[in-house]
Amino acid sequence: MKMLQEKITHEGIVLSEEVLKVDSFLNHQVDPQLMQAIGHEFAERFGQEGITKILTIESSGIAPSVMAGLTLGVPVIFARKRASLTLNQNLLSAEVKSFTKKETNTISVSGDFLTAGDTLLIIDDFLANGQAALGLLDIAEKAGAKVAGIGIVIEKGFQPGGQLLRNRGVRVESLAIVESLNGGHVTFRKEAQPK
Amino acid sequence: MKMLQEKITHEGIVLSEEVLKVDSFLNHQVDPQLMQAIGHEFAERFGQEGITKILTIESSGIAPSVMAGLTLGVPVIFARKRASLTLNQNLLSAEVKSFTKKETNTISVSGDFLTAGDTLLIIDDFLANGQAALGLLDIAEKAGAKVAGIGIVIEKGFQPGGQLLRNRGVRVESLAIVESLNGGHVTFRKEAQPK
Repeated sequence: MKMLQEKITHEGIVLSEEVLKVDSFLNHQVDPQLMQAIGHEFAERFGQEGITKILTIESSGIAPSVMAGLTLGVPVIFARKRASLTLNQNLLSAEVKSFTKKETNTISVSGDFLTAGDTLLIIDDFLANGQAALGLLDIAEKAGAKVAGIGIVIEKGFQPGGQLLRNRGVRVESLAIVESLNGGHVTFRKEAQPK
Repeated sequence: MKMLQEKITHEGIVLSEEVLKVDSFLNHQVDPQLMQAIGHEFAERFGQEGITKILTIESSGIAPSVMAGLTLGVPVIFARKRASLTLNQNLLSAEVKSFTKKETNTISVSGDFLTAGDTLLIIDDFLANGQAALGLLDIAEKAGAKVAGIGIVIEKGFQPGGQLLRNRGVRVESLAIVESLNGGHVTFRKEAQPK
């Protein structure tokens, strides 16, 4: 997705060969126009799949998901990383290991909102080691819901998550795939550049 | 806002005389169409104020804020409740006491994205004791930014936050004000019903 790649090129900050900071438009400050374009793009790619709900994870997955949900006309559910006062019954949970933070978190979704009749589009901001996506797939499976695919805003193609998910037969659509961050420079994978 | 009040009446769950659960459209599952309508309403109410940025707090403030930002054509910044790998420098922070969870959290915004030239609209999902809003006001003040007002989706009018903020001279616009949750029933304050 050209608009996204240009934004990454102009505003992304390469902190190391593994870490790309996009706090100016995705992970802290959010660009609503870009999120709308991203939502449209996800809706276009998955529009024929009979999606009934979008499943994402707080916090950075929410903005692109709500825009995709608006276009597709379906609700969004965001998995919570912490228990809340009102979210404490009928929980579907999964463990998510964070390699960067070296910790494991439990993410949870209420079983009230995910059912065996649902066809889900899973959306997340980043795909690196794939642990968050695996956790969301696990939750979908516990609900008995079908997963039509996974939509990712930025995939770090040099980390194993994308391959891991595709090897499982899951359709993964990444709007930008970063091939490397070597030399302080963002290089995109070619196949992610049709738009 | 009539559409919001109807949603609360039909889908809100009164858990106690103090706790209203709206997990089906705002705090866990999110209704994108309703969020869009809420965004439009905030944009209409604050559209003449020269807003340059929206400031909110993760996670439930993000969806209504991004929709308001889309309509107003301005970026959204969400304060983080936890430090992140990439958000660790030039931080503007504030302490936020949670009465329900009986804990105090530090919320943070990068000073890279808030400046003395900004005119902010602060948006949050709920207003109860006002602690989150006070924390966001504190952060805005540390940045030297002007605050045009605070937009709240649901104000619990029987808790002191709304009065506290209005007594400070801050313009607070709540799209629904819950007068009481007594008897397991949601009663709205009359002045919130013009739309």
